[in-house]
Amino acid sequence: MSLDINKILSANGIAAVIRQDGPLKVFTPVSGEQIASLNVASAAEVEQAVITSQAAFAAWRKVPAPRRGELVRLLGEELRAGKDALGQLVSLESGKILQEGLGEVQEMIDICDFAVGLSRQLYGLNIASERPHHRMMESWHPMGPCLVVTAFNFPVAVWAWNAALALVCGDSVIWKPSEKTPLTALAVQAIFERVCTRFGAAPAGLNQVLIGGRECGEQLVADARIPLISATGSTRMGRAIAGVAAQRFARTILELGGNNAGIVCPSADLDLVVRAVAFAAMGTAGQRCTTLRRLIVHASVYDQVIAALKNVYQQVRIGSPLSKDSMIGPLIDKAAFDAMHSALEAAVKDGGKVSGGERVTDAGAHAYYVRPALVEMPAQTDIVRHETFAPILYLLKYETLEQAIALNNGVPQGLSSSIFTGNMREAELFVSALGSDCGIANVNIGPSGAEIGGAFGGEKETGGGRESGSDAWKGYMRRATNTINYGSDLPLAQGIEFSV
Amino acid sequence: MSLDINKILSANGIAAVIRQDGPLKVFTPVSGEQIASLNVASAAEVEQAVITSQAAFAAWRKVPAPRRGELVRLLGEELRAGKDALGQLVSLESGKILQEGLGEVQEMIDICDFAVGLSRQLYGLNIASERPHHRMMESWHPMGPCLVVTAFNFPVAVWAWNAALALVCGDSVIWKPSEKTPLTALAVQAIFERVCTRFGAAPAGLNQVLIGGRECGEQLVADARIPLISATGSTRMGRAIAGVAAQRFARTILELGGNNAGIVCPSADLDLVVRAVAFAAMGTAGQRCTTLRRLIVHASVYDQVIAALKNVYQQVRIGSPLSKDSMIGPLIDKAAFDAMHSALEAAVKDGGKVSGGERVTDAGAHAYYVRPALVEMPAQTDIVRHETFAPILYLLKYETLEQAIALNNGVPQGLSSSIFTGNMREAELFVSALGSDCGIANVNIGPSGAEIGGAFGGEKETGGGRESGSDAWKGYMRRATNTINYGSDLPLAQGIEFSV
Amino acid sequence: MSLDINKILSANGIAAVIRQDGPLKVFTPVSGEQIASLNVASAAEVEQAVITSQAAFAAWRKVPAPRRGELVRLLGEELRAGKDALGQLVSLESGKILQEGLGEVQEMIDICDFAVGLSRQLYGLNIASERPHHRMMESWHPMGPCLVVTAFNFPVAVWAWNAALALVCGDSVIWKPSEKTPLTALAVQAIFERVCTRFGAAPAGLNQVLIGGRECGEQLVADARIPLISATGSTRMGRAIAGVAAQRFARTILELGGNNAGIVCPSADLDLVVRAVAFAAMGTAGQRCTTLRRLIVHASVYDQVIAALKNVYQQVRIGSPLSKDSMIGPLIDKAAFDAMHSALEAAVKDGGKVSGGERVTDAGAHAYYVRPALVEMPAQTDIVRHETFAPILYLLKYETLEQAIALNNGVPQGLSSSIFTGNMREAELFVSALGSDCGIANVNIGPSGAEIGGAFGGEKETGGGRESGSDAWKGYMRRATNTINYGSDLPLAQGIEFSV
Amino acid sequence: MSLDINKILSANGIAAVIRQDGPLKVFTPVSGEQIASLNVASAAEVEQAVITSQAAFAAWRKVPAPRRGELVRLLGEELRAGKDALGQLVSLESGKILQEGLGEVQEMIDICDFAVGLSRQLYGLNIASERPHHRMMESWHPMGPCLVVTAFNFPVAVWAWNAALALVCGDSVIWKPSEKTPLTALAVQAIFERVCTRFGAAPAGLNQVLIGGRECGEQLVADARIPLISATGSTRMGRAIAGVAAQRFARTILELGGNNAGIVCPSADLDLVVRAVAFAAMGTAGQRCTTLRRLIVHASVYDQVIAALKNVYQQVRIGSPLSKDSMIGPLIDKAAFDAMHSALEAAVKDGGKVSGGERVTDAGAHAYYVRPALVEMPAQTDIVRHETFAPILYLLKYETLEQAIALNNGVPQGLSSSIFTGNMREAELFVSALGSDCGIANVNIGPSGAEIGGAFGGEKETGGGRESGSDAWKGYMRRATNTINYGSDLPLAQGIEFSV
Repeated sequence: MSLDINKILSANGIAAVIRQDGPLKVFTPVSGEQIASLNVASAAEVEQAVITSQAAFAAWRKVPAPRRGELVRLLGEELRAGKDALGQLVSLESGKILQEGLGEVQEMIDICDFAVGLSRQLYGLNIASERPHHRMMESWHPMGPCLVVTAFNFPVAVWAWNAALALVCGDSVIWKPSEKTPLTALAVQAIFERVCTRFGAAPAGLNQVLIGGRECGEQLVADARIPLISATGSTRMGRAIAGVAAQRFARTILELGGNNAGIVCPSADLDLVVRAVAFAAMGTAGQRCTTLRRLIVHASVYDQVIAALKNVYQQVRIGSPLSKDSMIGPLIDKAAFDAMHSALEAAVKDGGKVSGGERVTDAGAHAYYVRPALVEMPAQTDIVRHETFAPILYLLKYETLEQAIALNNGVPQGLSSSIFTGNMREAELFVSALGSDCGIANVNIGPSGAEIGGAFGGEKETGGGRESGSDAWKGYMRRATNTINYGSDLPLAQGIEFSV
Repeated sequence: MSLDINKILSANGIAAVIRQDGPLKVFTPVSGEQIASLNVASAAEVEQAVITSQAAFAAWRKVPAPRRGELVRLLGEELRAGKDALGQLVSLESGKILQEGLGEVQEMIDICDFAVGLSRQLYGLNIASERPHHRMMESWHPMGPCLVVTAFNFPVAVWAWNAALALVCGDSVIWKPSEKTPLTALAVQAIFERVCTRFGAAPAGLNQVLIGGRECGEQLVADARIPLISATGSTRMGRAIAGVAAQRFARTILELGGNNAGIVCPSADLDLVVRAVAFAAMGTAGQRCTTLRRLIVHASVYDQVIAALKNVYQQVRIGSPLSKDSMIGPLIDKAAFDAMHSALEAAVKDGGKVSGGERVTDAGAHAYYVRPALVEMPAQTDIVRHETFAPILYLLKYETLEQAIALNNGVPQGLSSSIFTGNMREAELFVSALGSDCGIANVNIGPSGAEIGGAFGGEKETGGGRESGSDAWKGYMRRATNTINYGSDLPLAQGIEFSV
Repeated sequence: MSLDINKILSANGIAAVIRQDGPLKVFTPVSGEQIASLNVASAAEVEQAVITSQAAFAAWRKVPAPRRGELVRLLGEELRAGKDALGQLVSLESGKILQEGLGEVQEMIDICDFAVGLSRQLYGLNIASERPHHRMMESWHPMGPCLVVTAFNFPVAVWAWNAALALVCGDSVIWKPSEKTPLTALAVQAIFERVCTRFGAAPAGLNQVLIGGRECGEQLVADARIPLISATGSTRMGRAIAGVAAQRFARTILELGGNNAGIVCPSADLDLVVRAVAFAAMGTAGQRCTTLRRLIVHASVYDQVIAALKNVYQQVRIGSPLSKDSMIGPLIDKAAFDAMHSALEAAVKDGGKVSGGERVTDAGAHAYYVRPALVEMPAQTDIVRHETFAPILYLLKYETLEQAIALNNGVPQGLSSSIFTGNMREAELFVSALGSDCGIANVNIGPSGAEIGGAFGGEKETGGGRESGSDAWKGYMRRATNTINYGSDLPLAQGIEFSV
Repeated sequence: MSLDINKILSANGIAAVIRQDGPLKVFTPVSGEQIASLNVASAAEVEQAVITSQAAFAAWRKVPAPRRGELVRLLGEELRAGKDALGQLVSLESGKILQEGLGEVQEMIDICDFAVGLSRQLYGLNIASERPHHRMMESWHPMGPCLVVTAFNFPVAVWAWNAALALVCGDSVIWKPSEKTPLTALAVQAIFERVCTRFGAAPAGLNQVLIGGRECGEQLVADARIPLISATGSTRMGRAIAGVAAQRFARTILELGGNNAGIVCPSADLDLVVRAVAFAAMGTAGQRCTTLRRLIVHASVYDQVIAALKNVYQQVRIGSPLSKDSMIGPLIDKAAFDAMHSALEAAVKDGGKVSGGERVTDAGAHAYYVRPALVEMPAQTDIVRHETFAPILYLLKYETLEQAIALNNGVPQGLSSSIFTGNMREAELFVSALGSDCGIANVNIGPSGAEIGGAFGGEKETGGGRESGSDAWKGYMRRATNTINYGSDLPLAQGIEFSV
């Protein structure tokens, strides 16, 4: 395996730059072996990065947005060229199967294309003014250095979602990747620097990667020179960031925990349900924030659905994510495995009936492959309401759609959700104000696998941030409302008289 | 005077309902006399209000938005009918002159008209999907109970900005007015209840007023059942709210301190400048969040501008806000007066040259009328960078526009700002990404007196919230991204293959 | 009956102003009797009206849009006050039942409310420019005098749709109502003048009514000073207007013929279908442009649907529209009756089986009441593809949804359409790019009865115009794209170099 | 020269495919020599092209818009790769200098990038419905085959503006280029076919070029299967198209004549004015639709501006557009030269004082190079109000800005316009409702050289169409308003009751 690793690092242009003597050990979940030991940024280096980022911002905001878009277009070009290599590295470092590694890079490419289009838009409004000889308008301006904190499970796409928009919007970027996946970040940074060279006029430090742990993150989050923090990760982490940022009136874009449900109605296309659930619940070994974690099935089709799922769960191919045959790769690490097993134990205590969930040990002692678990639950107990980042699908039974929606909404998280139905009244109710309370509510597809054209994010403990499409770009800019008086009178709004 | 107070209370329909034996003493700044002593909401009453608001929300969100708009239209009608009476009460309780009291009610009316139009919009987007037989859309849904915290200086308009939008968006409202101005809140609530009666189908408790102090506010801010807090007030208060809200992932719309500057360029129309500055700096006795607090004048016109302003400042008529003659009413209370004088002392220490600022004592010992102060400063010292909520205008001199913009931006607050110039290059630079860093940036009008069609709010310590026009309504709703699959295939985004 | 007519005319404030000695005879379809004989505008009067409208435009465009909105708000108020009276006049003159007469006035009120909201929007865009020190924006400006041509079947609502937007947008209006319904136009003009008096600052002739026939219309359509023509009526009329207007590059908003179908799927809620079809096909005696004219029923439910409809068609109450009992009023005149009977004859020739369609003669020789007709057709023959403005519903059978959609689209008109289904795949397909080709495509409601929040209009021979909601207001304004250079360099777009 | 031509044809991949024995003679204005003689499409070939286009449309509209965007992205890539070659061919065939030939290709590239972004937007609206259990939305769907008629002066960019949007919007395209510039069209078609091969899944005939003259155009314009015609050219041609299209209710996007003015105010930066005027009036040898044709100069700076312009006009380098030295290439043909000289004669008759305008004969008898002409006019006479497609700049003097704006607006055309001023009041007035009546109104840049981010087009005889940025894409799609009832009740809009 070691040979493959070096080939992947080389293909990504980082073999030479990776230190092997730093304090941060990087492991591949594929085999559990160590693949690098990196330095971490010191407090002084973090400080310097912020200074650099401020200077980069001061220069970058002067570059017209469509020119900034050209840099992002080149980024898309280079990502296309490096897609296979980067996709492999994503698989190697995060453990997701190659199809998903490539899909993640495709998502980076898609958001670049989208951001290029935005670079000639970034529309403010001209607004009718109530006063003669006055014009009102709304302008959107660059914000400043933007801190992007990413998680191991989407080690590069989430950066791209944020950076493509932030760069087009005129912001500089400081990227703090997960300690578990620093190599993909370095590989992307290498691509980014190639892009800057081609572009020619990007300020130094426009995008910087800071490898480090909690202290590094805390230093950045507390820094008053960073007006914008986009963070993806656990609710616990998000809560900490939110508190600190709020004290200094920084803006946050938070993408935190999800506990995503699907509702299966009597009229659902069950063949489609099974395929959708399989990918949504087992894909990425259950380690997507949008992974399907709860399936709420109508009593009339419950047995049929369970049987079909059990069949699929038993057959799904588990193995090295770099192998074309595999559909399920490893968990990220032992802690993830332990958490999964604690959850299954708790579920059993609550009356749950588990099938699957056992470890698959072919890849050795330090790699944590598991067979995904189905857990039939008598009720939505505490463990079900808790997000366990592993391939556990809780199964619940319902009688009325109102019950099912109440179960869907009856958790602290609010990221994604689905309904499977052939009935238009059920479908519409689910996406109405009385339906799902999540930021994403789908019909006849699973809760995961969003397209970049829509706004991505969720409510409640998911944090409320929105990234990617729709008007998510506004999160990376500041808004100014301008009133221009081009007359010589000075009428006051609301008809007030005040003559001196 | 007492007689007038009763007439005003009666005209507002609250004479009968005001308790005179409660712990909360209400004074009029006009004379300093006490005009009511009200009960405050107990913890149990606050709890009950939240429960009621949740139930009101559950019913109100089912009412189609254009019907909700009809209620707001009726609110506009009733406010038109009660404009004179309510405008007088605003003057009486907050001390602003009658013209401004009426203007404040007009602003309530304007936002109602605007919100009625919105009630048939609340536009989400339909978005092109990358997958065959898929449709993507964005839906905006009601949020839940919305807490509105208002300040004494706009005791009713700020509620209306928030409530008109929140109600049209399907939210219920809990209003905690300033302890200094509870009577206007009660008067508005009386109007609101009249509206509900006419409307016929509003749930009980759709808008509730809770009179109380800090404990009441803290209880509400901490309540997990309130997903949205819109708060106007000091940066100190906003910081506290922001921290608590962030911990529980509630959304906040904060309108906090301003320290608003105007730049006077050599080409400015100086006659217009003087009129604009007079209203912006002295109006509402300097107690608007958008009050002009710093005037940055080009050296070539500095002497001329100062002389003209001194002339106006000496002549401006100070007196009872209920008198038609008055242009400047009282400060809200002794604390405001003390803060003003501390600030002037600090300014003198920093080398400032004060003219004006002296107390005007005609109205008796308990009313705090002052002559507005002009303070020529040698530099933008700490006291200048601090918001003092009183009619102090600091004067600074500049040589280059870049200097002037640096001064404009060199404060912690980011609410409003103005440039006065006849030069199109200067005007455009000021409203560009390199110009003012404030949420409001005006040309040839002062920083105050926004129209409701634009988004109102500011950056940095101002808190980042936006209210009123443009797409500020989105702040009162939750967004859902929906993907609808109406085919029988299940293509995955980003071209991923995952066949079970 | 004569007495009632005078009461209705008086209540509308036009009894006194109606001439009884002019060449234009006005009849009520209720009884067929003459109710007025009006003067028609001479060529010189038309010329004067255009001159007046130009002057009104020149003044009106200077009034800030939110102030223009205030006039429209007052129009809404006056329409509310006069709703009952005007609704009765609509019934009297057009023959629609009182419920629909009142509904028509309500639609006027709704569009006023909506337009008031628009008056603080009329949003142009600020657009990111590719050049440093450049700003791009899009401005929307008033167009000029707007000619509104309306038809008898919505004698006042269509004016309101156009006028409320046109007035808010800064245009003046010349209204040419149908020769068959001039009285309602005079009544609305009386209301409008009352509004102008209250408003105080409207220029003379802001909205003018010109009573006249084809010559009057032709003179106006050909007049180069009128940049915008909004015309509702027959395809024949629209074609003539379109040709003349195109030659002089005038803009047109055309709302012409419809031949609207509904598809009934096997999963449809048949009870709902019957109720929906009854209103859509028989309401307004089949004289809406959105009337349901073709019902395309799946073979499996065909017999059941036909039987249920026959039952309803036999029971529906036909009679004076001013009576509360009536559900179907008269046809507008003898020509309409003759056209209906020609169509039924043609349908029979093509193999159609007619039930209903017979004249109901209780109201005397000059009133044309008919029982609505159901016609089972073996195929979509020429007569089915032709719009007959009368209560004829052709019934067609289908086997596959593709067939049904092909039938729906297989006519020259493209206004409105519906599907009735409980199946989400069918519903979504129908509103997709592969579904209905009409401007309106509904699910589980009939093709008529649009809300004012959406854009109203259709494709193909319907003329392509859009009125009412969404961004239909842009049809009443001209767009300007502005690029502002505030630097001293002069970079060219697309990187062109050209140095002199 | 012949050798170069072959090299250019080869580099564009069309040397082999160009017939040299057809009836359509193609000349290069560079030398006047013939460079090809092409076949023209017969009536049967036109008919076949329409049939093919319909089939292509039927397939293409099923391809999801972001996938369609991918084809346009590849088009941008291929245009980047072929930019130099195609730019040369544009110069050769249209006579514009190489800088402008390259700029034209860049514009094609820019619109591709922009359209790719649009392909994930094409936003319709979700709209608040007044009825419970109802949802309203607006969908945008592909239209059908789109006819694009282009002119010689932008032989490829105008196609790209239209085709990039049309293709992303799901339409097929039939392109009828100018008879004077068919080779560039063939070259672009070769590129397009390369793109289709790379893309893999484009239907045959998605974009077709039809070489032909007036009959070919007339056949296409009259064809009822083509719902959309986008035509750029003379007002005469546009009027003919508009009339025919209107009769069959086809949609048109017309970009016709311009007669674009610039106003030079006393405060203008005269150095910038001279540079801007030089490019705007002389660039492309005065053969842009946005060419500056009238300069309206304030009396106080008139002499100074004229003197500076004369100086530039005498020095500007005229010669082969393929030479790097040249700034002005040839007129397109003898007819253009004759028209120019007729215009100058007419101007002299009207009292004009001409400088320049003489023929430059170095390139031989069949090439028509001219020195651009300045004509000082005593008034805006008929010849000034007429668009002559040649480098003539009429100079007019003004005293008040109102006069200048009246002159600007006092022509039948309404495409583009500029003001040069340092005064913000003048700048704002010019872009206000009371300013320029053109579709483009610029400040401190000339009337030509639009960026693709804005909507391009003009009012009055310019035809009213809009292409390129902002929401111009809506011109290539049809809009549907959908109301979805997902309840079992059937409430009618406007509160109408109709119970069967």
